[in-house]
Amino acid sequence: MMSYELYYWPGLQGRGEFVRLALEEAGADYLDVARLPPSGRREDANPQGTEHGIDAMMSILQSQNEPCIPFAPPFLRDGTTLVAQTANILLYLGPRLGLAPADEALRHWIHGLQLTIADMVTEAHDTHHPIANTLYFEQQRDAARQRAADFIANRIPKFMHYFERVLEQNPAGCAHLAGAALSYADLSMFQLIDGLRYAFPRATARFAAQYPKLTALHEAVRARPRIAAYLASPRRIPHNESCVFRHYAELDAR
Amino acid sequence: MMSYELYYWPGLQGRGEFVRLALEEAGADYLDVARLPPSGRREDANPQGTEHGIDAMMSILQSQNEPCIPFAPPFLRDGTTLVAQTANILLYLGPRLGLAPADEALRHWIHGLQLTIADMVTEAHDTHHPIANTLYFEQQRDAARQRAADFIANRIPKFMHYFERVLEQNPAGCAHLAGAALSYADLSMFQLIDGLRYAFPRATARFAAQYPKLTALHEAVRARPRIAAYLASPRRIPHNESCVFRHYAELDAR
Repeated sequence: MMSYELYYWPGLQGRGEFVRLALEEAGADYLDVARLPPSGRREDANPQGTEHGIDAMMSILQSQNEPCIPFAPPFLRDGTTLVAQTANILLYLGPRLGLAPADEALRHWIHGLQLTIADMVTEAHDTHHPIANTLYFEQQRDAARQRAADFIANRIPKFMHYFERVLEQNPAGCAHLAGAALSYADLSMFQLIDGLRYAFPRATARFAAQYPKLTALHEAVRARPRIAAYLASPRRIPHNESCVFRHYAELDAR
Repeated sequence: MMSYELYYWPGLQGRGEFVRLALEEAGADYLDVARLPPSGRREDANPQGTEHGIDAMMSILQSQNEPCIPFAPPFLRDGTTLVAQTANILLYLGPRLGLAPADEALRHWIHGLQLTIADMVTEAHDTHHPIANTLYFEQQRDAARQRAADFIANRIPKFMHYFERVLEQNPAGCAHLAGAALSYADLSMFQLIDGLRYAFPRATARFAAQYPKLTALHEAVRARPRIAAYLASPRRIPHNESCVFRHYAELDAR
């Protein structure tokens, strides 16, 4: 069986991390292609005969003949199938990795939750880049301070109250966002909370008291054996200021 | 057979419009629930026994016992199934309305395109609201001017070159974004282009010359009989400044 090939920028967790957590929890065989040392040609020594390194990722993005060209990383190659967009990759992997239920309505419910998580990730990113990706943070600092203040005052509470309600109203119990079993959305919720706590430690200082069920979910995911092993491994890139979740003290609550 | 029930803010196209276009193209039986006159109770005279009007939408959003509570409109009810998030609704409706192919890889390709369209819609929105949804445009005008300038200079070209390439590299021909038949992503691409041209008429003045295949797709969708009839009907809400696509002359190119 071929390995899944994940393509994402090396050196940051970013949106690729949501996919990595699913692959790691499932114990799936995967290559984190752009983080591997470059291999010049397909003939070189690796079992799948694929190129490695960031050039391999760029050559897919710039391909003039690939029909399913991604707009941006992350994307996943599974044999001849290329899937782009984080939530779409998880939709594809979910049933294959045992991280999504068979029931169609429940799958759409989980996917909708994942898309809402993705929306919040974009908003977290935009706290440090509210004007343009092509400018440095320092070039949009005033707008960033305003946007981050609104994110802390209005958006974190709105999203987190919603997700806490989702846990409360899950008829199968509050251990999981949807249904009675772990899904990729639970893993992504761990990552979202983890990123928010890293980026905004003062604003999230009372998180456990405000959102006890989300806090329990975050801790339960972190304690899962494969996730714990992954987080302790060099495969887990530390949070840093190249990521969507960046800690700039001036953007955090006073 | 029950009608599909679409829930979205009345008075604007917004993200609900991407769903409306799919329902209209398919000639599907649907209720645009929040736009209907209020009906106080489920027992009132309508064949599905559901409540109408914006209160009906709010009561789902605020429900304390609904398991699949949406974060925000649009959402769709189909019998007992509730689906939220625009792209997720289209993923659900696609095969049911004949607007998505049977092939799984192609479905994920189309869904990935839809998510990239959704990303651009969010960026179009953020040109007039770069700081906070809770503030008026006039309260974030300076940041809006900066963000809109970047959107015009960098983001419209990046996204539109990408989508033009998708048409060029479609092995089944450049009439559709994916495969040989119309999909919901084609309809959404019409709406995205339509919204951008409304919001930024000067910045998109050369659109037809710059993106000939996208322009042909936009015109082909607009000329489809059911779409043309819909656009000429009172069901199509005109573009306006409550929408994600707003025309503020000061944000457009000089």
